[in-house]
Amino acid sequence: MKINGVEIEDTFAEAFPIKVARVLITAVNEKWARVAAAETTGFGTSVIMCPAEAGVERLATSEETPDGRPGIYIQICTPSFKTLEEQLLARLGQCTLTCPTTTAFNGLPDAEKQFNVGFKLKFFGDGFESAEEIYGRKMWRVPLMEGDFLVEENFGACDGVAGGNFFILAKEQMPALIAAENAVAAIERVEGTITPFPGGIVASGSKVGSAKYKFMRATTNEKFCPTLRDKVDASQIPEGVSGVYEIVINGISEDAVRKAMRAGILAAVKVPGVVKITAGNYGGKLGKYQIPLHEIL
Amino acid sequence: MKINGVEIEDTFAEAFPIKVARVLITAVNEKWARVAAAETTGFGTSVIMCPAEAGVERLATSEETPDGRPGIYIQICTPSFKTLEEQLLARLGQCTLTCPTTTAFNGLPDAEKQFNVGFKLKFFGDGFESAEEIYGRKMWRVPLMEGDFLVEENFGACDGVAGGNFFILAKEQMPALIAAENAVAAIERVEGTITPFPGGIVASGSKVGSAKYKFMRATTNEKFCPTLRDKVDASQIPEGVSGVYEIVINGISEDAVRKAMRAGILAAVKVPGVVKITAGNYGGKLGKYQIPLHEIL
Amino acid sequence: MKINGVEIEDTFAEAFPIKVARVLITAVNEKWARVAAAETTGFGTSVIMCPAEAGVERLATSEETPDGRPGIYIQICTPSFKTLEEQLLARLGQCTLTCPTTTAFNGLPDAEKQFNVGFKLKFFGDGFESAEEIYGRKMWRVPLMEGDFLVEENFGACDGVAGGNFFILAKEQMPALIAAENAVAAIERVEGTITPFPGGIVASGSKVGSAKYKFMRATTNEKFCPTLRDKVDASQIPEGVSGVYEIVINGISEDAVRKAMRAGILAAVKVPGVVKITAGNYGGKLGKYQIPLHEIL
Amino acid sequence: MKINGVEIEDTFAEAFPIKVARVLITAVNEKWARVAAAETTGFGTSVIMCPAEAGVERLATSEETPDGRPGIYIQICTPSFKTLEEQLLARLGQCTLTCPTTTAFNGLPDAEKQFNVGFKLKFFGDGFESAEEIYGRKMWRVPLMEGDFLVEENFGACDGVAGGNFFILAKEQMPALIAAENAVAAIERVEGTITPFPGGIVASGSKVGSAKYKFMRATTNEKFCPTLRDKVDASQIPEGVSGVYEIVINGISEDAVRKAMRAGILAAVKVPGVVKITAGNYGGKLGKYQIPLHEIL
Repeated sequence: MKINGVEIEDTFAEAFPIKVARVLITAVNEKWARVAAAETTGFGTSVIMCPAEAGVERLATSEETPDGRPGIYIQICTPSFKTLEEQLLARLGQCTLTCPTTTAFNGLPDAEKQFNVGFKLKFFGDGFESAEEIYGRKMWRVPLMEGDFLVEENFGACDGVAGGNFFILAKEQMPALIAAENAVAAIERVEGTITPFPGGIVASGSKVGSAKYKFMRATTNEKFCPTLRDKVDASQIPEGVSGVYEIVINGISEDAVRKAMRAGILAAVKVPGVVKITAGNYGGKLGKYQIPLHEIL
Repeated sequence: MKINGVEIEDTFAEAFPIKVARVLITAVNEKWARVAAAETTGFGTSVIMCPAEAGVERLATSEETPDGRPGIYIQICTPSFKTLEEQLLARLGQCTLTCPTTTAFNGLPDAEKQFNVGFKLKFFGDGFESAEEIYGRKMWRVPLMEGDFLVEENFGACDGVAGGNFFILAKEQMPALIAAENAVAAIERVEGTITPFPGGIVASGSKVGSAKYKFMRATTNEKFCPTLRDKVDASQIPEGVSGVYEIVINGISEDAVRKAMRAGILAAVKVPGVVKITAGNYGGKLGKYQIPLHEIL
Repeated sequence: MKINGVEIEDTFAEAFPIKVARVLITAVNEKWARVAAAETTGFGTSVIMCPAEAGVERLATSEETPDGRPGIYIQICTPSFKTLEEQLLARLGQCTLTCPTTTAFNGLPDAEKQFNVGFKLKFFGDGFESAEEIYGRKMWRVPLMEGDFLVEENFGACDGVAGGNFFILAKEQMPALIAAENAVAAIERVEGTITPFPGGIVASGSKVGSAKYKFMRATTNEKFCPTLRDKVDASQIPEGVSGVYEIVINGISEDAVRKAMRAGILAAVKVPGVVKITAGNYGGKLGKYQIPLHEIL
Repeated sequence: MKINGVEIEDTFAEAFPIKVARVLITAVNEKWARVAAAETTGFGTSVIMCPAEAGVERLATSEETPDGRPGIYIQICTPSFKTLEEQLLARLGQCTLTCPTTTAFNGLPDAEKQFNVGFKLKFFGDGFESAEEIYGRKMWRVPLMEGDFLVEENFGACDGVAGGNFFILAKEQMPALIAAENAVAAIERVEGTITPFPGGIVASGSKVGSAKYKFMRATTNEKFCPTLRDKVDASQIPEGVSGVYEIVINGISEDAVRKAMRAGILAAVKVPGVVKITAGNYGGKLGKYQIPLHEIL
């Protein structure tokens, strides 16, 4: 299968269950919604050593936010609801409440699982806080130096999907990078998904465990390392390829992850120098979800 | 004392000791140096509930980076060297190594305290890594999908200063915000300091502990909340002020923090609508460092 | 009439006929589409002394562009079709063709008036150019240093509307500026309109002619100058207002301009410190179009 | 000669005299200084069909601007002082005066040639303007809707240099583009020069005149077109090169242009995939200035 002259390998991405909380942050303008989102979701690429996987989902226009201001949906993901509540409380409390002009809304108001994170954050008001019904939502008003901070009482979470992915192989590193940037930009328009790595891109796609260092939970995926092409058995790097990036996608459902993979791949193949798209899997042995590239395209 | 018509209160900022690691991240361009820095220093505003305080110090031009590429200095701060090493390892491993085109250099090569974080990160190479002397530094080369990642073997840390600060009071919230943005931009040119809060700004300046909720380590500083002006005793909000932001500064030395406070204040007072600058302290009872505003201006 | 506590004056904007060409520029990513658009529409605020009025209309997603790349619609406006063709040729030839990775598509393919600007630009190929039917459009392929430039043969133009407008009055200059920025961002999502002034905003709203200098075609609108509030008769500046910005809107139809005014005003009133919205007119004596604020809100 | 593994051809750039005006625009923040600069210097790539060549020189820090605000130096260039004065008046009047929060200062106060453009712009004040000595400069204060606009009375110009240049040849278009972006970023730190093309980059390097169309003043430089490599005699495209960008540099002196070329080339060669740097000349027959690449590196 070829799209725009780029080979799409007949393989599948393998993905896993994760718990996902979704928050809508609004601010006086898009700049400050983005700043809040970046700080709140930072240090959040992989639960291997980060306390959560987190990222920006998409912008929300003034028409769709409860307060009519520019907004941004973010997701925070951890393996259990217990750690998810801790992360929500710490990240919203330290990185959203502290950020100029923000309001934090429940991004999954209809989810079965709800955490009363807003109720807990309101203690920052030291007794000067108050409850209000605004925009049809139960909110807390907490007086701050900048004015009042509004936060919804509850924040919802759901069973989601982690580790949706595809690889972009290009003749040189720079076309691979531009293609990966474009894929991330396209995915930012898809409802329900995030790309938790830095700028949405993984420079260091990994394999589970290690052949040499038993204490490592993940190590470099040497079969996809261009500089190891002639040094490892069964290298997956075609001749003439010297740059590979992986896009990892988490989301609130398998369907959302599939749509994001599709949008990202279609954006990536438009960049001159891209020669192949493939995906990472473990032969179907580990993950609950299998997403075949040819099926989604 | 007045500067540009803005009153500078005769008071002082009170600051505390902290441990500071400094890293120089270079990348193919400024965009990717910034992305790496944002992810690596994210979820890092206050050690009250974040695992570290972290932020961007300043851009490093191609002329001054070891590899001649655009770079950025970041700082990571925690109360002890033990937690600092853990944070360095987790943040560089998960957020810098994974980020496209980055190289991580020791930002305090002459510090007495050195952590061999690069040595530990190299295990990601699963045996394909190699040591090299490059740019006069001991580096590790780790093969990745994108190509090779270079990381210096050691990263230095020192005794630094946390909680340098000043408050910007303005007639409206928006002038206070623009002034705070300008202060942060000016501080980003000062060697040796960071502003760890979102976008460098604190919307929610706090006091230690709580009058009402004993389980809270910090709560809103009600005396500086404009909407509580008529509801609390001894409000510090002058008539006509409806927006206040705090800039919190950490740095590698008291001198650096002083210079940053000076640069930030001089930038803030240029914005129309700003009426007063003051600073936060505890009467000198808690912090090791006292920085009088009139002395630094 | 009040929205979000902001007074909307019961008045109307007065607008005028103009000729409008619309171009869709695509590029390898949004950054380069924006760079091309900025250069191509620069020096284009008012036909009083600029050769055209020009600006960014809106982003076009990969789904809607003929080549599936990120794109941006721009408009170029002049009083006559003759000058419009000259401006199209000069601006596309000097600022779009020269810009990395761009393709220029006809933004009004169904308009009655069509200029064969692409046919004229192809002479740059010095005989190496060729015609192609691509994406269902008649395109020219011109070999360049970067690769091949594609440009559609024809570019359409129509009778449009210039000078739709509203004024944002705020307590301070900074809230007025943030509100104006937000208005421009909201208008950038509206189909068919541009805000030709720098960053979309007019700092210097004017009146026709001059009371004192007969050689001036336009001079400051002293009735709306905050610093002249106590020096002129019939100042329109309410007490407590010290900053005013005007948003000027051109578009392909009166309906589009109305929608843009609505979107911009609704965004502006969300900013703290904004106290009033009004609009500029000449009592209905000069312009063909009258757009009452209360009617569109 | 090789730098970082990239061949530097032993050739020279050929450049020409031009008249250069230099303006320092300050604003409330860097964003608005950049917006003013972009609009004021837009539609300004080449005097072949633009009314001027214009661009951003460099940022000016608060420490060095007369009013202590963030600033940006721009240059406007035309073949004669007569057209230069016209362009200064039109561009500053329509694109800087109209732009939020700007002040316009003389960027060449010591030049012999001075235009009283500020004196002419002050007529916009319709009699409400006033002269003031501020910051040690003779300024005009013009009341506007946003507040007062300040503009220096005179703006200086000098004999400068146009057409300094170098070409970046890469294996693929994307590495050439990233390298060109990096070169432009490096040149933006050099005093006294601009890169007038879109984003600082020329996608369409040209030759004087045309072999086929006698009415064309400039046409594609077919010897450097990768897609014509096998179709033209004496192609200058090495095997394996498929993307070339030219950086064109104007400046206030040959020395400044030399420094910019050096800074740009050193930045470009750092990008993976770049294989060669060369420059454009006419055999030394046309231009007054010859700048050998090996001499400046």
